[in-house]
This record gives sequence, C-alpha cells and structure tokens, in this order.
Amino acid sequence: MNIRLLLLAATLLLSGFCFADEASKPLLVTKQKFTLDNFQTFGGKNIAQVNVGWEAYGTLNQDKSNAILITHFFSGNSHAAGKYNESDALPGYWDSIIGPGKAIDTDKYYVISSDTLVNASAFDKNVITTGPATIDPKTGKPYGLTFPVVTIRDFVNVQKALIDSLGIKKLHAVVGASMGSLQAIEWSVAYPDMVERMISVIGAAEMDAWLVAGLESWAAPIKADPNWNGGDYYQSEAPKRGLQLSLASITQDAMHPAIFNASNPTHQAINQAALNDINANFPVVDWLYGAAGAKLDIIDANHVLYLVRANQLFIAGHNNDLAGSLKKITAITLFLPAANDLVLFPSMAKKAHELIGENSQYEEIQGMWGHLDGLFSISSKAKTITTFLESK
Amino acid sequence: MNIRLLLLAATLLLSGFCFADEASKPLLVTKQKFTLDNFQTFGGKNIAQVNVGWEAYGTLNQDKSNAILITHFFSGNSHAAGKYNESDALPGYWDSIIGPGKAIDTDKYYVISSDTLVNASAFDKNVITTGPATIDPKTGKPYGLTFPVVTIRDFVNVQKALIDSLGIKKLHAVVGASMGSLQAIEWSVAYPDMVERMISVIGAAEMDAWLVAGLESWAAPIKADPNWNGGDYYQSEAPKRGLQLSLASITQDAMHPAIFNASNPTHQAINQAALNDINANFPVVDWLYGAAGAKLDIIDANHVLYLVRANQLFIAGHNNDLAGSLKKITAITLFLPAANDLVLFPSMAKKAHELIGENSQYEEIQGMWGHLDGLFSISSKAKTITTFLESK
Repeated sequence: MNIRLLLLAATLLLSGFCFADEASKPLLVTKQKFTLDNFQTFGGKNIAQVNVGWEAYGTLNQDKSNAILITHFFSGNSHAAGKYNESDALPGYWDSIIGPGKAIDTDKYYVISSDTLVNASAFDKNVITTGPATIDPKTGKPYGLTFPVVTIRDFVNVQKALIDSLGIKKLHAVVGASMGSLQAIEWSVAYPDMVERMISVIGAAEMDAWLVAGLESWAAPIKADPNWNGGDYYQSEAPKRGLQLSLASITQDAMHPAIFNASNPTHQAINQAALNDINANFPVVDWLYGAAGAKLDIIDANHVLYLVRANQLFIAGHNNDLAGSLKKITAITLFLPAANDLVLFPSMAKKAHELIGENSQYEEIQGMWGHLDGLFSISSKAKTITTFLESK
Repeated sequence: MNIRLLLLAATLLLSGFCFADEASKPLLVTKQKFTLDNFQTFGGKNIAQVNVGWEAYGTLNQDKSNAILITHFFSGNSHAAGKYNESDALPGYWDSIIGPGKAIDTDKYYVISSDTLVNASAFDKNVITTGPATIDPKTGKPYGLTFPVVTIRDFVNVQKALIDSLGIKKLHAVVGASMGSLQAIEWSVAYPDMVERMISVIGAAEMDAWLVAGLESWAAPIKADPNWNGGDYYQSEAPKRGLQLSLASITQDAMHPAIFNASNPTHQAINQAALNDINANFPVVDWLYGAAGAKLDIIDANHVLYLVRANQLFIAGHNNDLAGSLKKITAITLFLPAANDLVLFPSMAKKAHELIGENSQYEEIQGMWGHLDGLFSISSKAKTITTFLESK
C-alpha cells in the first residue's frame, strides 16, 4: 500500500479529484457555463439568475439518445473525467470508469456532468455555482443567508433545464455517487419519462434521523465560529477555523477505520508531546487538519451549510412518502453500495432497491475505503456498469 | 419499544446512569472520599493532593479476598449500582448486574467503584474528582491547563492507592465498560499479581489513529469556543456552547443508527421549518442538543479535554508495545464487545483477546444500541459473567 498515495487521496477527497487506474492519454475537457433566469426553488422562492458549470465527454449522437448524466458528490464538482490541460496533476474523479473504451464509454455515450447549486468549492476557478457567496443582483452584495434553502430536487431541476437546453429528451442513464446518488434517484422519480437507467453508487433514497444529525455535525463548527457572524462575513474574516473542523469531520467520516489507520502507519498512542502538553496535537490530528486546511481558500462556509441542508431534506420524491415515490420510477436501476460504508450503510441502498422491486439490481463494492470505495474502488464494478448500460 | 424510555436513556447517558432491569428494593449506597497526597503522574508531574469519590456494595470478607473493582466509562462515575436515597429516580448504571443475587453478587463480593481523575462531571454533587477545575493549593485558583496531562495508568494508580488503603492485596476481578475497560486491561497489565480476573466490556487494548482523531472531534468544539479562552474561564463565562456540541457528538457516536432512529420515530426529511429557514433546526437536532444541554451545569469543559487526552494516550502497558504488555497478564480474561458497536468495533476486543491467548474468553453482546449495549444490554451476559467470576 503506497502511503503517500493514500495521504494524497485523503487530501484530494475534499476537492473531488481522484486517481485514474492507469496512465493513458487524457481526455481533454472544457468547463462550460449554463445560465437560467428566474429559477423557482422547490421551497417556492425565486433566484434571479442561476449559473452552473458543466462539462461533457464524448459526442451527442444525431437523435440525442446517447446522453448519460453524472451527478456529483458532496465535496465534488462537475469534473468527473478527463483533464483541463495535459499537465493537470489529476483527472476528474471517475476517470477510471469514464472515457474511451471505459465502463462508461465515451466512444458510445455523450457524458454530461454539471456543478450543483451551492457547490462547496465556490471559489475554485474550475467551479461555476450559484449560492450564498454569489452576488445578489438586487443588492450588489453576496446573498449570504438571504439565499433560499435549496434541495436535491432543485439540483435536479437545474440539470433538467441544462438537458432541455441541449434538446435531449431522454437520458440513457443518470449515474451518481453519494450525494450524486441522491440526485440520480431523484431524477428517476421526478422525471421518470426522461430516465431510462439509474445507477446509485454509495447512495440512499432518504435521510434518516441519524444522518440528519450527523450532517448537522458538519454544519455546527461553522455556525459556532464567531467569524461566521450569522452568515455575513464576505466583507470580513471568513469562518476558516470552523470550516476546517467541518472539513476534517467530513474527511474522517468518509473513511473506514481500516484505511484511516493504514494512512497513518506511524501512529503511536503514547506520544511524548501529547503526554507533556494538553495543547499538543497528535500527528494524525495535524494530518487531518492539514488536509482540510489546504482547501480553505476555495470552499465557502455558507455553501457547506446549504449543502448540508439540501442533503438533510432529502427523501426521494420530496414528499415524505418514500415507497410511493419510488413506485414512480420506470427506469431500470442498479444500486452499488460499498460493503464497508459507515456513512450510507449498504442497508440503505438495499431498502431502496427492495422498494423498487423487480427492475432493480444490487451489488456491493468490496474495498477498505468505506464510503470512499464509491470513488476509489468503482472500477471493480466496471463490467457490471457496462453490462447494465447496455441492457434493456 | 418505549420511546420515552429511549429518549430518557439517551439523555441520561451523559450522566452515567441507566436502568435496572426490574424493580426491587434498592441497595442504598454512600459516596466516600479518598485522599492521596503528592501523586506522581505517569508523565512525571506532581499533583499536591488527589481527592476521588468512591462507593462500595456488599461486605469485605475476613481475608479481604472477595473484592471486585468496577471502573467507569467516559461520561460515567463511581455510581455503578444502588441508590443514594430510596427516592432517587434511577440507580447506578450497572444496577442490572450488580446487587444481591445478581451477576456480580453483592452477597458474595465486595464491589468497589471510584470516580476517576478529571471526571467529566466535576460539578456533580455526587462526584468527587481532581482535575483542571480543582483549586490549585499553590495559587488558590483552579488549575486550568496547568493541571498535568493524566493517563489511564494514572486512573489505575489512584485506584490502586485506594485498594491498598483498604488492605486488599488481590482483586477477585476488575470489570469495566468502554473507558472502564481500558482501566481494567491496564490494571491487569500494570499489576498482574493483584488481578485474578478481568472483564473488558465494549473495550479495546489500544487507541488507533482513527480513534485518536475521533476523540479529537469531541475536544475540538470546546477549544473552538471563544469562551474557552485557553482553558482559563473559571472566573468568566464557561464555553458552554462548545461543550454542548461536544456532548452531542459523544451521544450520537455511542448510539447505533438503529436505536438513534428508533428514538426519533417522528423524523421526516422534508421538514417545513428546515425548508424555509437555513437557521431552523430539525427536531432530531434539537433533541440531541437538548439532551446535551441538560448536563452543561455539572460537566466541566476542561475535564472533557483531559479525559479525551487520557483516552487518546491509551495503549495497554503505556509503552507502545501492545503484544509485549498483554503477555504480562496473568488474570483470566473475558471480552464482551457489542456486535453492533461503531466506536470500539468488536475487532478491537478480538485483537486483544487473541494476543492474550488461551486464558481468554470472547463473547459478543447482541443488541441494537451499538456501543451502549455495554450498558443497556449487559444483563444478557449475566450468566456468562457469573460463571466467569466463579471460575478458576
């Protein structure tokens, strides 16, 4: 096990990048911008203008029937595959399964991925998003907490407007990991006639009380930071310490103890500095905080709060009737939870799979990453994905 | 499933109390105080005077050979069984297994339990402890962070002084849950000639990197609270908001999702208040914070930090040689992890059990509480415990 690689992976988790399984000439991609005026949220509020980034791999065929939409995870963005420049250190997060001849074959499919609303990385030059850090045209200042609460359904509705704008009537598939799975499931419930296949990777069809409280523990350090100032910090100091603690929790929660410990092989419980000084940190804590700290300049704290809320509010169909909503799905579905996931337990994916019934498949990803096996071990399901995409 | 009972249990978790399995005439107990001058810590520092509370159930026999020591968990204290007054709402936390005719039979055994150093509940009238909130005789003010870092070995050494003071040369058994298990294991390593039997409930023989980082997430909200003020807050406002977030995390981490969700049966993902207002909490969050908030007046934030550190530094033998240290054990040992524990996974107890070898037994507690099955489902192992205490 290459420890430097693990350390790097943990750091990069926060940016939504990961590793290609093999070196190959990269797919070169360009970020594009999609604009939508007067967007009405699920909660009934209006956003004057929504801008989101998107990218695509492959070619849309004549009858526009080969489009696959990839929906991204909590700390991710639309960079699912390829590189912006050949010199980029890393390709998009699912480059191991998206590309020419890969599981999601860009020689066959036109693969689209878009940044969500309230994307965490509001200040990343490769992300285009709309959220509390965006300038409110009415005031000329960032929205802050005047930005309306948005939901996974809203993420889907922005994507639908993008898909509509491209003249695509049906998606060959919608595929997403973690929060991306929430969007994929929601797509197949909200717009069943547009979704032919749905793949949920490390996903769930609803947030239970335990997850809602767990998500709150990611929001809490931000709200407790005095610099947060009720969300109004864009003209002053950002709540970076709170954000750092939040990102540290997100990183740890996504990693199974096995990989977390393998990433810190020199850990010793009796640490002289920690024994001598209550204020001294263990090296593992410095490592975790360091990984989080490296992303503080591109992530907006309010965006994290809004992402947390969008996830907390999630139940497929957005009407507190899970079984009824899942019955609306006409797509064939494939659930790929990670066997060792301690965030979205396989039992959650299994529940959705069973409620959907006969048109659903279920397979567990084996790996030692836990939740992150949905990113780092996804290529182990390449054949299953290819076969599923070719079926029906 | 009685939901009110569950809610109450979650609240009470923080105080270290729990439920007797059946109503019976209570064992009445009295808190006593043990004083030790010039205590030298494992880290080589001196504490001018240590005071800890202790209580006992049953009668010490003539040759002082029937003593069993109970060591308490993180948020617990020495009140392991019985009541102080008949009118007390609840008995001590392991009253279901400690008492006349129970698994740890006080008709046979003299059962002792003591408050640890840096006990979390520094301001609980039924707890006597020494830590940062204690007045430093040199300055006449609370120690604050001038109090030395203490370890699980120090908790054991204070208990040993208490046991010595009672003229007890050998303990029939040392038994503890969670952090109490750490103490029980340490007892059997540090003083093998004094420990005849050791029972580790929901325990581990060392803290790995994942646990150290997880424990840090309990300390972080306290340190991030501006009122914490580098630990110097005894003449001003205590860091209660940080402490509340810390206690909320501790409560959630100790509960398996199954019981957490069963405790919040009215949870719905689409919550109108949360949909309309980014600042609104879900009811489950208010419930969790409320349970934590109820204990803020009796728990000291610095004590929590010191407890976190004592746990982080734990490895049996305190010399970073786990296998070598466990070989020193001459007691027969019994490991009772909880099958669904997501804090101290059964694999950790199994590792210790296997390193000890042939004189060790291992059985998993079945239940839906997760880590808390070590408290709330312990009576399911009553027969195993009784038989073990009678063996050899």
